[in-house]
Amino acid sequence: MSEMTTEEWSRKVKEGDRRAVAKLISAIERKEKIARDVLKLLYKPVGKTITVGVTGSAGSGKSCLVSCLIGAFRKRGKTVGVVAVDPSSPFTGGAFLGDRLRMQTHGRDKGVYMRSMASRGYLGGLARGTVDVMRVMEAMGNDVVIVETVGTGQDEVEVARLVQTCLVVLTPNMGDDIQAMKAGIMEIAHVVVLNKFDMPGKEKALLDLEIALKMRSAPEDGWYVPIVPTVATEDKGIGDLTEQIEKHQEHLRKVVGLRKFAFKKAEKEGSVLVKDEMERIIFDSLKGTGLRRKYLDRIVDGEIDPYTAVEEVLSLFIKKSSKEG
Amino acid sequence: MSEMTTEEWSRKVKEGDRRAVAKLISAIERKEKIARDVLKLLYKPVGKTITVGVTGSAGSGKSCLVSCLIGAFRKRGKTVGVVAVDPSSPFTGGAFLGDRLRMQTHGRDKGVYMRSMASRGYLGGLARGTVDVMRVMEAMGNDVVIVETVGTGQDEVEVARLVQTCLVVLTPNMGDDIQAMKAGIMEIAHVVVLNKFDMPGKEKALLDLEIALKMRSAPEDGWYVPIVPTVATEDKGIGDLTEQIEKHQEHLRKVVGLRKFAFKKAEKEGSVLVKDEMERIIFDSLKGTGLRRKYLDRIVDGEIDPYTAVEEVLSLFIKKSSKEG
Repeated sequence: MSEMTTEEWSRKVKEGDRRAVAKLISAIERKEKIARDVLKLLYKPVGKTITVGVTGSAGSGKSCLVSCLIGAFRKRGKTVGVVAVDPSSPFTGGAFLGDRLRMQTHGRDKGVYMRSMASRGYLGGLARGTVDVMRVMEAMGNDVVIVETVGTGQDEVEVARLVQTCLVVLTPNMGDDIQAMKAGIMEIAHVVVLNKFDMPGKEKALLDLEIALKMRSAPEDGWYVPIVPTVATEDKGIGDLTEQIEKHQEHLRKVVGLRKFAFKKAEKEGSVLVKDEMERIIFDSLKGTGLRRKYLDRIVDGEIDPYTAVEEVLSLFIKKSSKEG
Repeated sequence: MSEMTTEEWSRKVKEGDRRAVAKLISAIERKEKIARDVLKLLYKPVGKTITVGVTGSAGSGKSCLVSCLIGAFRKRGKTVGVVAVDPSSPFTGGAFLGDRLRMQTHGRDKGVYMRSMASRGYLGGLARGTVDVMRVMEAMGNDVVIVETVGTGQDEVEVARLVQTCLVVLTPNMGDDIQAMKAGIMEIAHVVVLNKFDMPGKEKALLDLEIALKMRSAPEDGWYVPIVPTVATEDKGIGDLTEQIEKHQEHLRKVVGLRKFAFKKAEKEGSVLVKDEMERIIFDSLKGTGLRRKYLDRIVDGEIDPYTAVEEVLSLFIKKSSKEG
């Protein structure tokens, strides 16, 4: 396998060769240069793949919901790729046995490809890793790619912005979380899922959410966010949910236009890639120079402040002005 | 005020002048260059200030706990600065009235300085903004600086790593969250707080946590993480909690050594500053060149892949090799 050219490798991925895909994702995780060379060949601006994000707090039941969605898409004959960016996800072994068993059923299905991203392995590069793995899952020909994230961190929000249709999962008992959602994360939702809709207080929570959504100003792109009640553990409401996902997809294709979406995505992805690439360049450049240690010692000894130190270090790598350069 | 030199400004901040402090934090939020010049003058490697992080999910009651801690430190005659990095925090108006009222009491106390950081305003620079505001609160002479964050995102974890003593707040009903914590966030805890210790299932949750902590390998720095049960709404367990904070501070000073901590902090802060600074440089350099738009169009039209595009753009700004340069 290591003998493969990048062309062969990318061809195998496009053919859906699971071994080639697994190797590529591992290379992405280890940040190997060859991974990027293969990814370059896998790029296409607008594909047929539907990308869906599922985000929400730990305990909102979103893993169970993802499992239901996989089932619903598979029933329609669609192949599904899943990227889980969540330390508590059943993919990473963090969740309850029931969830893990449910997932294992899908794990044996050839039409489903699942991969977890451990946050720890991606410090400072979580969004980048996810972008790359999503691209691999699109390239291998999946009809649907689902990205599951915990919805509170900035990196996770960044990931959620890279999908076409973003579901935000809430539950009736999440008073505080609903507040938090209102303040920030609601902005990224295309569909709000009110899961565990068999709990006490469900009607009040639904009403609160409806009011919160009605109080928002008219959406820029003409899409009014619907609320879908579900009980994922009983597979209830999943029909309505997939319908809303399809409606949003239609809206995206007919009203917003896929080119405009692709442009926005390129913008976001570009900013993710730029940050990651710059980090790599600086890190590589500093390696073995002893400069890092020298500056840290000077900072701790009070000889230089961290702001000036960073300016000095960066001036070694960055051209004075691109316009002059 | 705008007539002030950076020297005057930093002197006023060090004297605790609230107007000078507020203006500086606003300048930090607007990412004004002058803010950095003042911050340079405020730097000191090792100060007397105790820094405490309080992190946990929305709904864990951590804002209420912060309020209790403020009270406890004030009773001991200590001045307290609070930085809240949380969209659901009462500081940002996201939480319930009770919390807000509780906080307002402290708001009238001259020995307390509170400031919230809206995540939205800091996209890509949350950690940097927090680092800077913490520095201001230390410089103005607070005995204790508390940083409150939602504990799931990477940026938030990054922030938590910058404090001396990090509290992770859990509750008995957070089955999933406790799993998540085990997987990742537990690593950053110096003290685990089991809040809402009047809920059903509290004893089992405590036992689970104790087992989880016992199963960890021996700590590198010799500090064994204690669990403190609290009922923040009734101010219960706060004495034990402040005691554990003080114990950890003593450990830090006597066993780890403040210089070693300062070195680690400089390392983490350096990486935060480098990322932020690089972003600013690239952003400034691209402004008005039309390059960004040109590359985005080419990406969407499929003429170039995003990876190659980013490489090309960065090559305009970054010297080929620092060793040659």
